[in-house]
Amino acid sequence: MSALDDLLAGEPAVAAVGTGFLADAISAQGAVVQSADWRPPPDDVVAALDTITAAGRARVANREAIGRMLAVRPAIVAVAVARDVVPDMGERTFLHAGPPLTWDRCSGPMKGALIGAMIYEGLADTPEEAERLGPEIDLSPCHHHRAVGPMAGVVSPSMPVAILTDSAGEGRSYTTLNEGLGKVLRYGAFAPEVIDRLRWMEAVLAPVLRGVFERRGPVDMVTLISQALQMGDDGHNRNRAGTSLLLRQLGPALIDGDEPVAERFEVFRFIDGNDHFLLNLVMAAGKLQVDAAAGVPGSGLVTTMARNGTDFGIRVSGTGERWFTAPAPVVEGLYLGGFTAEDANPDIGDSAITETVGLGGFAMAASPAIVGFVGGTAAGAVRRTLEMYEITLAEHPDFKVPFLESRGTPVGIDAARVVRTGVAPIINTGIAGKEPGVGMVGAGMVQAPMSCFIQAVQALADEEVET
Amino acid sequence: MSALDDLLAGEPAVAAVGTGFLADAISAQGAVVQSADWRPPPDDVVAALDTITAAGRARVANREAIGRMLAVRPAIVAVAVARDVVPDMGERTFLHAGPPLTWDRCSGPMKGALIGAMIYEGLADTPEEAERLGPEIDLSPCHHHRAVGPMAGVVSPSMPVAILTDSAGEGRSYTTLNEGLGKVLRYGAFAPEVIDRLRWMEAVLAPVLRGVFERRGPVDMVTLISQALQMGDDGHNRNRAGTSLLLRQLGPALIDGDEPVAERFEVFRFIDGNDHFLLNLVMAAGKLQVDAAAGVPGSGLVTTMARNGTDFGIRVSGTGERWFTAPAPVVEGLYLGGFTAEDANPDIGDSAITETVGLGGFAMAASPAIVGFVGGTAAGAVRRTLEMYEITLAEHPDFKVPFLESRGTPVGIDAARVVRTGVAPIINTGIAGKEPGVGMVGAGMVQAPMSCFIQAVQALADEEVET
Repeated sequence: MSALDDLLAGEPAVAAVGTGFLADAISAQGAVVQSADWRPPPDDVVAALDTITAAGRARVANREAIGRMLAVRPAIVAVAVARDVVPDMGERTFLHAGPPLTWDRCSGPMKGALIGAMIYEGLADTPEEAERLGPEIDLSPCHHHRAVGPMAGVVSPSMPVAILTDSAGEGRSYTTLNEGLGKVLRYGAFAPEVIDRLRWMEAVLAPVLRGVFERRGPVDMVTLISQALQMGDDGHNRNRAGTSLLLRQLGPALIDGDEPVAERFEVFRFIDGNDHFLLNLVMAAGKLQVDAAAGVPGSGLVTTMARNGTDFGIRVSGTGERWFTAPAPVVEGLYLGGFTAEDANPDIGDSAITETVGLGGFAMAASPAIVGFVGGTAAGAVRRTLEMYEITLAEHPDFKVPFLESRGTPVGIDAARVVRTGVAPIINTGIAGKEPGVGMVGAGMVQAPMSCFIQAVQALADEEVET
Repeated sequence: MSALDDLLAGEPAVAAVGTGFLADAISAQGAVVQSADWRPPPDDVVAALDTITAAGRARVANREAIGRMLAVRPAIVAVAVARDVVPDMGERTFLHAGPPLTWDRCSGPMKGALIGAMIYEGLADTPEEAERLGPEIDLSPCHHHRAVGPMAGVVSPSMPVAILTDSAGEGRSYTTLNEGLGKVLRYGAFAPEVIDRLRWMEAVLAPVLRGVFERRGPVDMVTLISQALQMGDDGHNRNRAGTSLLLRQLGPALIDGDEPVAERFEVFRFIDGNDHFLLNLVMAAGKLQVDAAAGVPGSGLVTTMARNGTDFGIRVSGTGERWFTAPAPVVEGLYLGGFTAEDANPDIGDSAITETVGLGGFAMAASPAIVGFVGGTAAGAVRRTLEMYEITLAEHPDFKVPFLESRGTPVGIDAARVVRTGVAPIINTGIAGKEPGVGMVGAGMVQAPMSCFIQAVQALADEEVET
């Protein structure tokens, strides 16, 4: 739309930043004014930013880190069982989303998902028994095992996982297969139907998909996601196009295959019945990218944003494995029939990896229809993407936004820019019920907590002082 | 985007209408000004518009006609052979796109497609022989046979056709199956590879799809197209999402079927290889809608816009079967490697039926990525859709534009509004080479010739006088 069209179409809006008298003066004249609550960072944070700038290596380090991130070419190559392929996966290892967590600090949906996984693994027969066993299992973040999982993100030894590799490098990553929406394990549900579905996924879905990938070879995720963005996906909470394109890739090998016809038929229908099927695979593609970008000294590139339902945690390239955490925020959004904000657990899931690699909230301008799922307006979706250019290091060379005249999505969050601008990364996400066993209650948007980025900047500054 | 964002992001633009001194004055101050070339219609046309207004029945008639158009629920129900199902289809009947045409007035691509069809039917062995036979075949517009075809739109007796019905009414419509892009019959190509593909479509594609529809039942086109618009399709020149959704619908019946596995595999791959596969089916869905809307006395609702490569023709509800024609205009667009505007045939095809039912150029705001195919900018695509609200009777209840905050697409062109506003319907379209045998040379945009609408308005006024 031209400036003129828009100007004629709506009320003019005024934005005021800083001291209040500007906003007051405009407001007194009857005009709509929006006050931005930006204020300069506290002195010690400014000092940390200055230290990083003075050290002078952030620019080159960031270029190196984002270059590594964008050089990765993720491809889905196979399906296997977690215990056989995921690194350091013991018989009592239960991977979870977000930063490290202990049983006693688990939120309701995380406990629910772990209870379900224990029942699924045959370690417990009842939820009560599983709950008693809880403190004895080995909890470990997916992110420490080259894995990612949406919402609770629980990966237990018997679960099937997809394997992705970097066709331009050496990386490998893993993710579970998406169960669908509603009452599902990753949202904390553990009713018998949830466990039955997981068993069907192990017995039918996984073997059939293993055969499919053996027959057809890898699925290139860069091409697939790029096309999906041209088709209204954001790659996080809208994956209808990407799931459709994946089915087009898998179809021929589902028609001509050795597995029983009824099973191949069921597998097609299962994926067709779940427009979020691609999500986990997009996340695992991102995991390859962020792992490649990690460990560049001096770089503030965010390599992880993840939530375990209790804490929100980030990691940045220059400080490697170290987590910077804050309480998981509450998501603003749309609730499914009968549920309200009262029922919502705080933010949960590794799926913010999509935002970490230029998708999700960062690509919402490509996905106006997503507002029907997460709330807001199409105009707001465009505004959010535009805002994210303020805090990112690059425009994505492959993921383009048609409505922004094919500008690349904002990609590569720089912790220093987040702190300097006061603009927090926007994430769109599902909302889990806070009680174990409930499942999904809604979807919405949330901003990453600023304090994680401040801690990261301070840690980067400390390293510069030590260097 | 808010007005403020846009105002800050770009140069302000000024539009001037009418006498030139306004534009000159602004231009003299160094500002960008766009002169609209609108001028009041000639006196006799104004008189005709006045007659229609004075008669007073257009409003009710238009409401009746658009109501009928939007009440149709098209569904694909079967695949059959043209001679067996298309009404009045003799052994020497060759249907073509657009208004009635004789062999001597056929453009290059129309001749090329007819030559190919004669060879395909076994009436001729060589292009030369077919050309000699040309004057003896029975040419008839698709639109007279409840059928539609893109570009040359040739339907010959042996060709497979899809059958669509109105699940809310009694209508039936027919269309050929889409061959793909490049050297294909509908663009006027008739090389052996073109004929071989048509034979494969008859021998393999059609029987397999017949079986698929028998097994699975109808595919509802309202749901499918609605979803496709949420996924960046315009339903005319961008059908990647719709074709993907169709494959999701057909997949299970292609996995579990009686036909040889190799044929079902090939059929999936053929459709997957052609993102325009859905086009013909969208057109046939539109054909059900426009046929339902025809014949309401006093209504200026446009029920047909179609081009035969020589003439552009329209029909309006109130004057039934009567065509109003003008020379087919030249398309502005993007050319495939090696071709230029010199190689282009004037506008051709029944596919402007998509614009007649609120898709194509009218839905371009839903399809920003289409500009890579037909040219222009995403902002221009939005502007075109917005302009079409000026000349249409309704906002589509099912086909929504996510970027316009889910406003329905402009649907139901009113010939009187076109004439009054001077805004001609915009059509996006493929471009055929003007020499027979060449095939596709590009794609672009074109405006329907104003004189067709003026004739229609005059005919509607004449009927009011006679009444």
